[in-house]
Amino acid sequence: MYEAHFGVPMSGAVVNCVNIRLNAPTIASLLEHSSAAIVMVDQEFFPLVEEALKIWSDKSKNDFKPPLLIVIADESCDPKALEYALRKGVIEYEQFLETGDPEFAWKPPQDEWQSIALGYTSGTTASPKGVVLHHRGAYIMALSGALIWGMNEGAVYLWTLPMFHCNGWCFTWTLAALCGTNICLRQVAVKAIYQAIANDGVTHLCAAPVVLNSIVNAPKSETILPLPRVVHVMTAGAAPPPSVLFAMSQQGFRVTHTYGLSETYGPSTVCAWKPEWDELPPETQARLNARQGVRYIGLEGLDVVSTADMKPVPADGTTIGEIVMRGNTVMKGYLKNPKANEETFANGWFHSGDLGVKHPDGYIQLKDRSKDIIISGGENISSVEVENAVYLHPAVLEASVVARPDDRWGESPCAFVTLKPGVDSSDERRLAEDMMKFCRSKLPAYWIPKSVVFGPLPKTATGKIQKHLLRARAKEMGPLKKSKL
Amino acid sequence: MYEAHFGVPMSGAVVNCVNIRLNAPTIASLLEHSSAAIVMVDQEFFPLVEEALKIWSDKSKNDFKPPLLIVIADESCDPKALEYALRKGVIEYEQFLETGDPEFAWKPPQDEWQSIALGYTSGTTASPKGVVLHHRGAYIMALSGALIWGMNEGAVYLWTLPMFHCNGWCFTWTLAALCGTNICLRQVAVKAIYQAIANDGVTHLCAAPVVLNSIVNAPKSETILPLPRVVHVMTAGAAPPPSVLFAMSQQGFRVTHTYGLSETYGPSTVCAWKPEWDELPPETQARLNARQGVRYIGLEGLDVVSTADMKPVPADGTTIGEIVMRGNTVMKGYLKNPKANEETFANGWFHSGDLGVKHPDGYIQLKDRSKDIIISGGENISSVEVENAVYLHPAVLEASVVARPDDRWGESPCAFVTLKPGVDSSDERRLAEDMMKFCRSKLPAYWIPKSVVFGPLPKTATGKIQKHLLRARAKEMGPLKKSKL
Repeated sequence: MYEAHFGVPMSGAVVNCVNIRLNAPTIASLLEHSSAAIVMVDQEFFPLVEEALKIWSDKSKNDFKPPLLIVIADESCDPKALEYALRKGVIEYEQFLETGDPEFAWKPPQDEWQSIALGYTSGTTASPKGVVLHHRGAYIMALSGALIWGMNEGAVYLWTLPMFHCNGWCFTWTLAALCGTNICLRQVAVKAIYQAIANDGVTHLCAAPVVLNSIVNAPKSETILPLPRVVHVMTAGAAPPPSVLFAMSQQGFRVTHTYGLSETYGPSTVCAWKPEWDELPPETQARLNARQGVRYIGLEGLDVVSTADMKPVPADGTTIGEIVMRGNTVMKGYLKNPKANEETFANGWFHSGDLGVKHPDGYIQLKDRSKDIIISGGENISSVEVENAVYLHPAVLEASVVARPDDRWGESPCAFVTLKPGVDSSDERRLAEDMMKFCRSKLPAYWIPKSVVFGPLPKTATGKIQKHLLRARAKEMGPLKKSKL
Repeated sequence: MYEAHFGVPMSGAVVNCVNIRLNAPTIASLLEHSSAAIVMVDQEFFPLVEEALKIWSDKSKNDFKPPLLIVIADESCDPKALEYALRKGVIEYEQFLETGDPEFAWKPPQDEWQSIALGYTSGTTASPKGVVLHHRGAYIMALSGALIWGMNEGAVYLWTLPMFHCNGWCFTWTLAALCGTNICLRQVAVKAIYQAIANDGVTHLCAAPVVLNSIVNAPKSETILPLPRVVHVMTAGAAPPPSVLFAMSQQGFRVTHTYGLSETYGPSTVCAWKPEWDELPPETQARLNARQGVRYIGLEGLDVVSTADMKPVPADGTTIGEIVMRGNTVMKGYLKNPKANEETFANGWFHSGDLGVKHPDGYIQLKDRSKDIIISGGENISSVEVENAVYLHPAVLEASVVARPDDRWGESPCAFVTLKPGVDSSDERRLAEDMMKFCRSKLPAYWIPKSVVFGPLPKTATGKIQKHLLRARAKEMGPLKKSKL
């Protein structure tokens, strides 16, 4: 996949990395939607792709033009999958490369606004959209990522963030620009992360907050501490709970908190550390560092605007508006989706769909996805802030808060919680009450979760918690009765 | 001048920084050539500019439109110059700023290929040309400089390289992008450099090789050693003698050797350090690091081509060709100079006018300016390589080698040498003979200087040795007679 980030664009084509955890019907619809001409697949996933191609073929019937299929061999895999593919007459990747001309004189694109990559949004919502990125944005993002992160020549980067996810936030190309080293894991697990840090000289890695959570909560037998060097961790994808940021820094990881979307080539804001924060108590540092921050070098415009009239909200830290961006590192648009493009680029800005505030120091802070906000008695409740409070409870490993229908208030906060290993969960009712009580000193009364549900949380391939599924579950639970309040 | 790098382009104008060491007639001709509309001048140089404007006015007579004149006050200067300017009715800079609108909504340029800066070449040749740079190149160069040099957020940069020289190689804009700190010296001297390193936390500085030479040869009383931290030094402008590179690294400076021209926004190649060089003897390291290296991230094309047919020379380390560049970080062109533009951009490349070779590892090495090469008996002699040999002699502080007319060989090398303080120079003839003997083991016989002249070397404001003046002196000395050989 790393080589494809160079070979595909250099051949004049567009690279589309597909999430390996999707099922065959979804993959079929993506391949069809993008009119894939060549499909390269790791031998482990060959049966999945074969099934997807069959679905596509059955659906399209005589219109189906089968893509060229290439299987990538990996010695660490069960050889049967490869043998099976080769028996079917599929060409192996290295053999395919040998059919090429080593003297091929590749040319940069005629126009830098031409497409370099397509990526389908990871699907916290039901219908994935095809985000089209251009060469210009990828170039500027590749340089910006290094500058924002202080990533220098020779950096050793561990691929904990999936490379299929938004082209690894363009670090694919950054690493080449820096003559860096890519460390890839076949299976991302906490133990493997610590081993790569110890054995391969890892200096940088990216990870979703849930991965950070796994790192700080790992059993001692899987960790290798103290770290042999400072390891820089970039996180994004959700606001990491301050408690997790604090625990990471205690272990010696230096966490850079960024925020962005597939539509912005990955991160487009960074919570730039201010020297004066060095003197603050660790909890305050973590709270400040949990904000989304200021715009990336490569992004020209960032603002928080009123959803009513597009006017910038005051920098008061409390007025909620929509976060909007514009500039080189904003996508070309969604593939074959004029309606979505019109909405998302209304009034000359890219609309993130995220709600946030602007602080007096100019740093923005995410309050919620517009669809995640909980409206209780006509007042907005930030599900993220409720989560931050719940995360501080010592028994909580993971938490997600969504709206539950409520007879009296319309909606009220419902917390889904995974407990840390070893926590006594025999009396769930008492635990739930304890958590509500715990939140009382930290949140306005109407923000306190009125329902608490224990169990594992549904997640996307990139580790994002799937709130739409939790919302559906909260709805199924039925409205909270007045009598219960 | 630093503020002007932002305020001037943000107002839609083009910034042209003028070398403070030029004389009034030259400044007059530059201001006229560029049709300067506003002239901002430090109070120390007010009389100089006044004289230049008078020359321009006298020459243009009724056509003369006087530019708006603004004087910049500096408390550390003699107050008389400021009083004089104010008496003449000239507005002071801070007062001028107060006439502005703090809410002025500046806009980026409509087209990024629009001009941001004009700079006249520093004049190692007789007729300075106006190099026009565009916003796009300045942006990419500002980011490239940081990435090439590993310069991170919060860098503390000492302005030893004059800011008027090619916009400080675009580090003006780099420092802003990195939220860095600029340390400016009113007078650049070795003692002040060491003091800034000790007191102001300097992490980075740029300097011409002659400045490095002053640093390593400074009297102990002016140095502060050991350095309180690694200080990164970027050098360019001439190939630094390996002996100087070696001495710098011994003192704890980490020297990054780059090469470029005003026409390429400053440096456009870097001698990127290879990890395997760490194990080599220091002299070998210095020799490898004296090469000009590989292209900058921001430069798309770099090659060494035959001057006869523009074909790339083989990467053999010996075949000499012209160094050519193309890409985003190449100037728009010379102002009002179509003939020079046609020549310099012939065949789709920018022609540097520098001669060099390509090594098997792809690193280029400068051999000479095309006009500096010495042709002796039909063979090319690299004046730079002869200088490198002369520099190794323990009595030599500075050396420059040019062609002297020669009755037998057409031309032969003539070395102009400044001796280190304390060297007994009573017998110049014996010293000269000793130097020639010293070179015998290091150079081909016909490369050994046949004339050696002692004394100070003429230099430009940026510290470049003015070889055209030395060539003129060598010519005046008359041809070397056959009998002398």
